[in-house]
Amino acid sequence: MGKVRLAVLGMGRQGQIHSKNIAYMIPEAELVCASDISMERVGACAVQGIDLYDDYRKVLERDDVDGVVIATSTDTHDEVIRATAAAGKHILCEKPIATTLEAIDSVLEFVTEKSVKFMVAFNRRFDPTFKKVREMVADGSAGEPMIVNITSRDPKPPHLEYLKVCGGIFFDTSVHDFDMARYLSGYEIEEVYATGSVMVDERIGQLGDLDTTMISLRFSNGAVGSINNSRQTGFSYDQRVEVCGKTRTVFGRNETPTRVEYIDPQGTHSDVPLYFNIERYPAAFLGEMQGFVDCIMNDTAPPSTGRDGRIAVALSMAARKSYDEHRPVKLSEIG
Amino acid sequence: MGKVRLAVLGMGRQGQIHSKNIAYMIPEAELVCASDISMERVGACAVQGIDLYDDYRKVLERDDVDGVVIATSTDTHDEVIRATAAAGKHILCEKPIATTLEAIDSVLEFVTEKSVKFMVAFNRRFDPTFKKVREMVADGSAGEPMIVNITSRDPKPPHLEYLKVCGGIFFDTSVHDFDMARYLSGYEIEEVYATGSVMVDERIGQLGDLDTTMISLRFSNGAVGSINNSRQTGFSYDQRVEVCGKTRTVFGRNETPTRVEYIDPQGTHSDVPLYFNIERYPAAFLGEMQGFVDCIMNDTAPPSTGRDGRIAVALSMAARKSYDEHRPVKLSEIG
Amino acid sequence: MGKVRLAVLGMGRQGQIHSKNIAYMIPEAELVCASDISMERVGACAVQGIDLYDDYRKVLERDDVDGVVIATSTDTHDEVIRATAAAGKHILCEKPIATTLEAIDSVLEFVTEKSVKFMVAFNRRFDPTFKKVREMVADGSAGEPMIVNITSRDPKPPHLEYLKVCGGIFFDTSVHDFDMARYLSGYEIEEVYATGSVMVDERIGQLGDLDTTMISLRFSNGAVGSINNSRQTGFSYDQRVEVCGKTRTVFGRNETPTRVEYIDPQGTHSDVPLYFNIERYPAAFLGEMQGFVDCIMNDTAPPSTGRDGRIAVALSMAARKSYDEHRPVKLSEIG
Amino acid sequence: MGKVRLAVLGMGRQGQIHSKNIAYMIPEAELVCASDISMERVGACAVQGIDLYDDYRKVLERDDVDGVVIATSTDTHDEVIRATAAAGKHILCEKPIATTLEAIDSVLEFVTEKSVKFMVAFNRRFDPTFKKVREMVADGSAGEPMIVNITSRDPKPPHLEYLKVCGGIFFDTSVHDFDMARYLSGYEIEEVYATGSVMVDERIGQLGDLDTTMISLRFSNGAVGSINNSRQTGFSYDQRVEVCGKTRTVFGRNETPTRVEYIDPQGTHSDVPLYFNIERYPAAFLGEMQGFVDCIMNDTAPPSTGRDGRIAVALSMAARKSYDEHRPVKLSEIG
Repeated sequence: MGKVRLAVLGMGRQGQIHSKNIAYMIPEAELVCASDISMERVGACAVQGIDLYDDYRKVLERDDVDGVVIATSTDTHDEVIRATAAAGKHILCEKPIATTLEAIDSVLEFVTEKSVKFMVAFNRRFDPTFKKVREMVADGSAGEPMIVNITSRDPKPPHLEYLKVCGGIFFDTSVHDFDMARYLSGYEIEEVYATGSVMVDERIGQLGDLDTTMISLRFSNGAVGSINNSRQTGFSYDQRVEVCGKTRTVFGRNETPTRVEYIDPQGTHSDVPLYFNIERYPAAFLGEMQGFVDCIMNDTAPPSTGRDGRIAVALSMAARKSYDEHRPVKLSEIG
Repeated sequence: MGKVRLAVLGMGRQGQIHSKNIAYMIPEAELVCASDISMERVGACAVQGIDLYDDYRKVLERDDVDGVVIATSTDTHDEVIRATAAAGKHILCEKPIATTLEAIDSVLEFVTEKSVKFMVAFNRRFDPTFKKVREMVADGSAGEPMIVNITSRDPKPPHLEYLKVCGGIFFDTSVHDFDMARYLSGYEIEEVYATGSVMVDERIGQLGDLDTTMISLRFSNGAVGSINNSRQTGFSYDQRVEVCGKTRTVFGRNETPTRVEYIDPQGTHSDVPLYFNIERYPAAFLGEMQGFVDCIMNDTAPPSTGRDGRIAVALSMAARKSYDEHRPVKLSEIG
Repeated sequence: MGKVRLAVLGMGRQGQIHSKNIAYMIPEAELVCASDISMERVGACAVQGIDLYDDYRKVLERDDVDGVVIATSTDTHDEVIRATAAAGKHILCEKPIATTLEAIDSVLEFVTEKSVKFMVAFNRRFDPTFKKVREMVADGSAGEPMIVNITSRDPKPPHLEYLKVCGGIFFDTSVHDFDMARYLSGYEIEEVYATGSVMVDERIGQLGDLDTTMISLRFSNGAVGSINNSRQTGFSYDQRVEVCGKTRTVFGRNETPTRVEYIDPQGTHSDVPLYFNIERYPAAFLGEMQGFVDCIMNDTAPPSTGRDGRIAVALSMAARKSYDEHRPVKLSEIG
Repeated sequence: MGKVRLAVLGMGRQGQIHSKNIAYMIPEAELVCASDISMERVGACAVQGIDLYDDYRKVLERDDVDGVVIATSTDTHDEVIRATAAAGKHILCEKPIATTLEAIDSVLEFVTEKSVKFMVAFNRRFDPTFKKVREMVADGSAGEPMIVNITSRDPKPPHLEYLKVCGGIFFDTSVHDFDMARYLSGYEIEEVYATGSVMVDERIGQLGDLDTTMISLRFSNGAVGSINNSRQTGFSYDQRVEVCGKTRTVFGRNETPTRVEYIDPQGTHSDVPLYFNIERYPAAFLGEMQGFVDCIMNDTAPPSTGRDGRIAVALSMAARKSYDEHRPVKLSEIG
């Protein structure tokens, strides 16, 4: 086949990143057009010479679009996914698919009926560091995973307005780490126990949310693990993973802007980790898009599926339930 | 005062280490004599020119002994502590003080009555790395601790005979980490939740024990944390701590035998961590003894007390109860 | 002003990199057209929708080109630079400007007469790591530089055909390091002493060249230093710098593809450094182009000048003379 | 045989270290007695129960002494070595043996006649890190050495009084590094070129000495290398080695007091290297003494010989000659 012809729906920050990656960084792909309800946003597209629309349905009408990246606001996902699938176009959808399991199941069923590929944008799976950790587990060189620990801490809390609508720390932050834990280990998480506190900002507690959490994990092979989140490190983004397998213990460490180190009487000093997800994960965003293009080109399964998206949401729900009821919760209780 | 005059009771591996440290490494101390029920063991003492006995009571009769290191087998601790305190001599006692809280309380009460100093041998508090982590919390430079994570994994399981009598992984291994978590944070652990598995050796499971565990912690200031133990890394001793405070995240990393690094086409390579506690903690054993000598010389409180020993045991009991009852357990439930 | 309008002459590997950076990565710049004597090469340009020529003079005729990147073969540099300057267009020229000092001086004089900006492509100055090392010297935080050491070793020798025409290791490899040493220190190199051997491949010696060299440096402020080159590490590209200043010793270390680390019984393992200059210096190539665009936009001096290019060549000549005559050679002897 | 019976002559700082190592740390050895011209110094000996003398000849008269450690002042070495050899006792001698090659040759000839073992105290050969680097060269796993670089920088200059009598930086500092370069590579250094400056303290220049030096090396197998010394890093002791072999590049890095690392908004921070040789090389001093004891016990060649001591001095002379005459100097010129 020729180039994979893609369009981006929703040209916020994430849509812009996707657009540039498609247009400039992936030789097998082509950016055909883009849309946003704001003509200002879509007009700011850094890619020249493509068609721009203020209605995503215009994109779906085009015959020369093979796949669509859905980067619109979460509340529109259900409608846009259905319309895209109905138009027979493959889908890369930002997470979450929807906010209830019923809604997720319904839309995934629809997509399956329409026989289009559906990939959920768990970009971190495509980070070169985490990918290599996964490879050592997948190829057996690390041995059977026994412990999986994930540290994921933000530099500072988002704005209060965002905090009010994000669904809470388990849905907004831990959801990525649940996917990472499943991805790295290759096993399902069967049970979680969540504890947490408000250590960073009282207003987060007033919203009924937490800013510092520790989730205990049990995997289907008997392995144990932890997900440790915080809304504030005070420095930058702390993103680390660890898999203790039977023959190797493997670490995915933080990335830094440079490799400068210096010594003075106060110590040996090097960079802080990269600031936040935009700085930390450009290679992951690119790898994710390459994965989407590849699965269309080669007609293979998407590297992160609707089912992966559903399970990560269900685990976030289990974590919240565990915290609320102050007891371990099995995934099977969530449905 | 002149030198602090010490004796060592029990000349197994640990007693030998203590003897050499007292005799050779601490100028303010002097090793007067040593005892062991086996004359062979006590005769193997590397320190020349001291008196050797096959009955610890002979040591206690001597007027020229200020303090005693109790390194006899655990089941004798109760009797030896009482006899030593009755003889008016200060005590550094290997952990555990006893195996039930009632027995611990009773012996601590007796020791208090006799007004001798009583220090429990939590050697890791004196490791230069962990001590420096603690200092950054204690002096406020790390900020209020929000997360405390402790990784403590053995190179390989002990012999089955030892496993049968050690009381289980929570009492044998986690007990050190509970003390470390309290020491590093400066706060009490109020609640634990323990999960775990048998991933390393089925025979450990047949004993009703676990070999791979994850304990969730809640501290009195609201901080959360984890203790992660394993009986087998497959390489060597993995001993790491992490405190995420409001202004700094502080790590205590593994020690290695050398600082050699080399690059070849397969990668960049350096040493494995030091093999086990004897290799890893010589400076800690020495620092511990120095702490004991200092508290006698300066008539100050011991740097790790009978109360510290009691709480670590109680937390190990809480972890086991949590695992058995599959629910979070408060320390206050243990009594 | 609007966007800086650029063209690329010569669409080999380096020209392609420049083209993509101009077109896609620098919002203030625009790629107008490109040329190559091979229509096949220029047709392979990854940037869509620009004009392509098989004669660079067609590019120079266009009024809508502000600056030109000269990435044609070295033997054409003299002619192309003169034509470009005569056309009144700014120049970013791959090194070397020319292969004799007379030729360099003559062409630089011509360029100066024509009042166009002339920048030499010392890309490593724009590497984020080396740039930050330089900043610590430039802002005084490292203190007066006392020692500057540069390690620059290739993964393996280039093809014999290339070795025959590259001018030898001092001109082909050390030339970059001479510029780096001047850049990092902010001082001139006044004297060099070069020693070297054929350790890697006898055929290199048969060409009268060396594959393993150590150049001693003396700087104008009295600092000493070294440049250490090798044609073969056996693994990948080893590119490190070190400045020992009065108050800090600063290191620029190697970059690696990931931040994975793992421990097994053989050791603690991480990645090899990135393979070669294409892998190691993408950020430097981009930063270099940004520097060229900025100096046109803001009408400032280029960040690496024709004089810098000339001095690096003169120092390479001094190194060869030092080796040939087996004695230290002053830069002033070269003229 | 029973324990190796040793005596220490000269109880300054180094003699005290040797005494404690013999008495306490090496089970196969025994400290019989010690001497110093100052009864105060010898009386301060930390080892109890040994005989102390104010005349080294009393030590040599004893039949129960197998070997002697000569740690007296350098100007007495000649006399003390001869007397000790005449008494038929094995010798571990602090460097330098003497300050002229003639004197060294004469005393080494005498020692050979007397058939006692003679070991020169190049302690760094016994540092675990450098020893392991050497092992990778010696066992072939690093491949043929092509480049050997040694960095050896002091925290700050010694007192002026010491500087006046130490013989200059090449004899006082580089001498250790010459031995290290020969030890690591297993090859002789055939030619040196030394450059240097006064960057740290003008008074050092007024003594005709240098404080910042770079010595180029050529080895007998064609390898090149460098020794880089400075009297002042401004922080602590910077002691690093590097061997680039055909199959591995091997680094011996600095040691630090702890393995603490912390991150704050300013960077990622860890310890400064250990302060100076007393802090950096305790394991090396111990390993050196073990090497001396082993060669007596097993009747094998000493691990660092009189010849090694002579060559290191000759190379220091060559470096000074090179600096003075501003040209490369062959070791064969020195005689």
